[in-house]
Amino acid sequence: MKRLFVFFMLCNFLSFADDGSRLWLKYDLIKSESQRKVYSKTYKKIVVLNQTPGIELAAKELQEALTGLLGTKIPISYESNNVTSSKKSIVLGLTDLGSEEGFSIAGDNKSARIESKSEIGLLYGTFAFIRRIQNLESTTFQLTDSPKVKVRMLNHWDNADGTVERGYAGSSMWKWPELPETIDPRLIQYARANASIGINAVSINNVNASSRFLTPEYLRKIKGVADVLRPYGIKVFISVNFKSPKTLGGLETSDPLDESVRNWWLKKTNEIHDYIPDFGGYLVKANSEGEPGPQDYGRTHADGANMLAAALEKRDGIVIWRAFVYNADINGDRFQEAFNQFKPLDGSFHEKVVVQVKNGPIDFMPREPFHPMFGAFPKTPLAMEFQITQEYLGQSTHLTYLAPMFKETLDSKIDANYTVAEVVEGTKDKFPISVIAGVANTGSDVNWTGHPFNQANWYAFGRLAWDYSLSSEQIAKEWTNMTLSHEPSVVNSIVDLMTESLPTYIKYTYPLGLHHMMGEGHHYGPQPWLEKSGRPDWTSVYYHRADAKGIGFDRNGKMSNALSLYSKEVQNKWNNPATCDLNYLMWFHHLDWTYKLSTGNTVWDELMIRYFQGPEEVKAMQSQWEKLKGKIDSEFFDNVAGRLKTQEREAYWWRDACYLYFKDFSKLPLPNGLKAPSRTLEDVKNIERIYHLR
Amino acid sequence: MKRLFVFFMLCNFLSFADDGSRLWLKYDLIKSESQRKVYSKTYKKIVVLNQTPGIELAAKELQEALTGLLGTKIPISYESNNVTSSKKSIVLGLTDLGSEEGFSIAGDNKSARIESKSEIGLLYGTFAFIRRIQNLESTTFQLTDSPKVKVRMLNHWDNADGTVERGYAGSSMWKWPELPETIDPRLIQYARANASIGINAVSINNVNASSRFLTPEYLRKIKGVADVLRPYGIKVFISVNFKSPKTLGGLETSDPLDESVRNWWLKKTNEIHDYIPDFGGYLVKANSEGEPGPQDYGRTHADGANMLAAALEKRDGIVIWRAFVYNADINGDRFQEAFNQFKPLDGSFHEKVVVQVKNGPIDFMPREPFHPMFGAFPKTPLAMEFQITQEYLGQSTHLTYLAPMFKETLDSKIDANYTVAEVVEGTKDKFPISVIAGVANTGSDVNWTGHPFNQANWYAFGRLAWDYSLSSEQIAKEWTNMTLSHEPSVVNSIVDLMTESLPTYIKYTYPLGLHHMMGEGHHYGPQPWLEKSGRPDWTSVYYHRADAKGIGFDRNGKMSNALSLYSKEVQNKWNNPATCDLNYLMWFHHLDWTYKLSTGNTVWDELMIRYFQGPEEVKAMQSQWEKLKGKIDSEFFDNVAGRLKTQEREAYWWRDACYLYFKDFSKLPLPNGLKAPSRTLEDVKNIERIYHLR
Repeated sequence: MKRLFVFFMLCNFLSFADDGSRLWLKYDLIKSESQRKVYSKTYKKIVVLNQTPGIELAAKELQEALTGLLGTKIPISYESNNVTSSKKSIVLGLTDLGSEEGFSIAGDNKSARIESKSEIGLLYGTFAFIRRIQNLESTTFQLTDSPKVKVRMLNHWDNADGTVERGYAGSSMWKWPELPETIDPRLIQYARANASIGINAVSINNVNASSRFLTPEYLRKIKGVADVLRPYGIKVFISVNFKSPKTLGGLETSDPLDESVRNWWLKKTNEIHDYIPDFGGYLVKANSEGEPGPQDYGRTHADGANMLAAALEKRDGIVIWRAFVYNADINGDRFQEAFNQFKPLDGSFHEKVVVQVKNGPIDFMPREPFHPMFGAFPKTPLAMEFQITQEYLGQSTHLTYLAPMFKETLDSKIDANYTVAEVVEGTKDKFPISVIAGVANTGSDVNWTGHPFNQANWYAFGRLAWDYSLSSEQIAKEWTNMTLSHEPSVVNSIVDLMTESLPTYIKYTYPLGLHHMMGEGHHYGPQPWLEKSGRPDWTSVYYHRADAKGIGFDRNGKMSNALSLYSKEVQNKWNNPATCDLNYLMWFHHLDWTYKLSTGNTVWDELMIRYFQGPEEVKAMQSQWEKLKGKIDSEFFDNVAGRLKTQEREAYWWRDACYLYFKDFSKLPLPNGLKAPSRTLEDVKNIERIYHLR
Repeated sequence: MKRLFVFFMLCNFLSFADDGSRLWLKYDLIKSESQRKVYSKTYKKIVVLNQTPGIELAAKELQEALTGLLGTKIPISYESNNVTSSKKSIVLGLTDLGSEEGFSIAGDNKSARIESKSEIGLLYGTFAFIRRIQNLESTTFQLTDSPKVKVRMLNHWDNADGTVERGYAGSSMWKWPELPETIDPRLIQYARANASIGINAVSINNVNASSRFLTPEYLRKIKGVADVLRPYGIKVFISVNFKSPKTLGGLETSDPLDESVRNWWLKKTNEIHDYIPDFGGYLVKANSEGEPGPQDYGRTHADGANMLAAALEKRDGIVIWRAFVYNADINGDRFQEAFNQFKPLDGSFHEKVVVQVKNGPIDFMPREPFHPMFGAFPKTPLAMEFQITQEYLGQSTHLTYLAPMFKETLDSKIDANYTVAEVVEGTKDKFPISVIAGVANTGSDVNWTGHPFNQANWYAFGRLAWDYSLSSEQIAKEWTNMTLSHEPSVVNSIVDLMTESLPTYIKYTYPLGLHHMMGEGHHYGPQPWLEKSGRPDWTSVYYHRADAKGIGFDRNGKMSNALSLYSKEVQNKWNNPATCDLNYLMWFHHLDWTYKLSTGNTVWDELMIRYFQGPEEVKAMQSQWEKLKGKIDSEFFDNVAGRLKTQEREAYWWRDACYLYFKDFSKLPLPNGLKAPSRTLEDVKNIERIYHLR
């Protein structure tokens, strides 16, 4: 009877489909018994040499992983530093060597060793070790690793009311009303997931910041979150509203050079440290899209940032000051505004200030040339800001794997000698601080990210923040092995699907370097016809500049001089439409519809070929996915299969919107073999209008 | 090896804490082996007599339940109607007897039988049968049951953008962007939970309605939801924006007497039925709090409702028209406005129209006298609208079990002969339609409702909608047995905690019938000092009328005549402050601070005694809860323990706010033994201000 019960309980358990809540930290039994045996006979014990809370945390993570993966509970034993008999053991211990967060792991067919100078390094090493097993790698190996960038950060755009700006996975994970007394156990899962990929900093609130977060009422709540994240090596940052001295302090000004304002920030900073002694620092969006800032008082971004840095003078924390600023100017070029505003300030920032620059010059478009500020600020450390949440990249309904996009920016050469990644790392200008940030795609959804594949983007961001030299394919392979399957044919197919997903998305949305033509405000679906908005640079026509003759934004002198902000090497690569990378073509050139490209097609034909290929490629993705049926978890499978259908519908929506709109300019027929859609421009305009209905 | 693996898998499984996602449909093994045996030896087989999809659904639910609860997989066999050998079986079959949704279940120590006229009745009977086992009830019994009210409905105030108005459990469960192609498996869980308590209708969007939901784009999505809910007997309603003919149809008016408008709604109604053939109907908030409505065109609520009813003329659906209307009039009394606006219309509504009235005359206050419309509309069926989500009842941080509140209204006598429940049921005036609705408290949170105990409010609403004669204690006991424990001492303690929770909440918020003094807009925490708002009837002072002499709203002639809207019997009960139920005192009387109450205390002393008792009772709840540690699931325990701490903090906040504010009117000292708080009125005002900070 008892055995029968166990059996049925188990059946019951196994019948639960995988809801995605465990992310890539799935410690399900490795299916191949022979593979399990390889590990089981090598790892019979976990030996902890230094019994500290941090190391115990690592040891328990390792134990849980091995118990799940190998189906055997491996005991943990605590031994003194001197004992060296470690046969059939995994030994975790501190060492004097290496960097603060680095680790070395090594193993042979008799044992393994995880070592680091710090507890957090040991945890990172442990996760690296677990990852090896999740990837069925050899027991014999030697690996020393340490992060290239110091602060590897998620920026949460979470609002005080529980919504998430540009969030597509439910509401905020921070449950403000019930904090700090109630800690959602999901916060621990979130911390584990971040630690497993080396993320060590989190800004908890939207950069369009409520000053509410600086009140004692909320600092108590934030302390609740910080206390959960701390054991996992994660520091908390707060996004601040620059007007807080007025709003909260009752001062008459928030002028950064005013003594009372400076004192207010110093006192507030000290108060924060009473709650969070290892406070990470401030993240600031100032004088940008209506946010308050130092310019409201005739001061510069440097004045504002330096004031906050002064308040942190005696602390470990830093100030991350965003460079995402632009003025509404119909005759200007938003592309160059941040550069022009910040360039004169290079060299005038406090040493605790990092200026955070988006990967591209506009706003997280699916494909942007790297931001010209990278490489042009020898006296200021620049942080990289990526967007993991897919505001312009299909939100929750398109499968778009972002590692290739992150890599494209990081690998871009700023000149003959350096890449963007090296600028961010600080190698080029020898800065002591380095920051890489990603706007988080996490929310309260059971599976954290909405689209199941968006989990891979969180994973990939973390992995690249740690080591930008990893390849997109390598990361996709790791993630797939950890999340979905160990079957090589399945893994290869999924990695292939992921790797091809971004180029496909770009084909039906923004081919040849078109940009910023999404639906107004909601940013969902296409609206290339958008002519009027709150500001000229929030329209579509500002960017694509389509007219009877041609299309594209000439930044080579005719519409703006933005290309001149780059090094000569880069200018030479992009200044000639005949040789410019087709991916960036419309970023720098306004070309006649009939201009003949290197592909042999005219601009019009090439655009249309790509627009029409896009949805067909989505259909191919569907077929490829269908073949995985029964080979991966059914809930994950169904979820993605459904979204691929939505993606197809929306790919046609983009294609038709762009074709029907641009053809009225070009007056040209579709290239041979392409069939015009039966719906009208008015039909597709009507779809977009729905998203403005109250 | 294999056995070892099974063992550890199981350990792993059992170590997962209960995250609340399964609600009360937990089919965990009954701990007592002897108790299991009683069932196991009686139920060895499920026999299905009529193999239809609906009955199979019931049989599989039963199988899943028994497998979990008894630890033995019980086979299902399909047998012809003629076979009567049913020993050791549970037989499910259709019968000609009974009502459409009713069922009879019976059993002895040899077998059991579940019978109904309909598939859905069989499903209800099955859940009733499962509930008996979850409550460890006898195998020998006989029960015939059918719902008292025909439409038992959840009103979701879910917005198109994924937020939920007055939602405290994450974002909307309807994932609009990915619907209909992707169906969240949680929707099936939601449908099961509703069916298990007899809920058979759902309005899917906020009554502050976006016309977006009537576009083909969204009707496809709603169809996706309706298809999931249909097998569980749940019909879908849509909340409509009255202006839709203009907004969507491009008409020049939305006048309900205009022929083109009437045609537009008829065509739209037909279109909806193409997607959802069993469409439930429309829910409408019109000319209320800024929403459009027939009065915009000089027409009446009846004109508006009847137009929609005409569009549904040939369909099964109905129109639910809300009576929640009131005008901003500083000299008026919101209490009586709905009554006065609707009373002249009694008898002029189409037979497909139900007028939906909130339980009380203001707005879901923790304690309201029943709405005077109930009993005063002999020619109009009135639906009852409760609010399950706790907008004014502690939101996600206070443990408040609402069944006693629902019961208080339902059991209220409208006159010598009838109760409110009988009016809603239609018994009094013999209406064919009857509706009871609850504003849903569900969201995307893993545990569905935020505060774990809020699950009990969803459960209680459904049970009472089915049978209002059930007692609060009975429902609490069922829910606790199904959700938390079978241990009688544990169950009793939890039932006791639940039963006492509402009186405690009322003590520190709205004692003696005070009402509407919450924080402006967000409705979180106290703000009795609110004097100015968008409208006079959105302030606090409009309601409590505190002055140097006394406190309370005299509705007995001096400030308004609202009490006269009730029957003579009710008036006689409430018109004398010396005999009026203390719970409703301030609803009908403005009394001197020194007026001596039946308790022997003055108004001031009695108010303060209650305000000061409240937080102490919360501390007692904490102690009571602490004793359950280790006796119920640890995750549930910790979650509630944390929230009880927040509740304590907020109870003191309410107490101090109300004491510090009202004492400046009464100028009286605290009664003996009560100690004034050390904080100031300004201190508590500052807490509320935080929630208005951008």
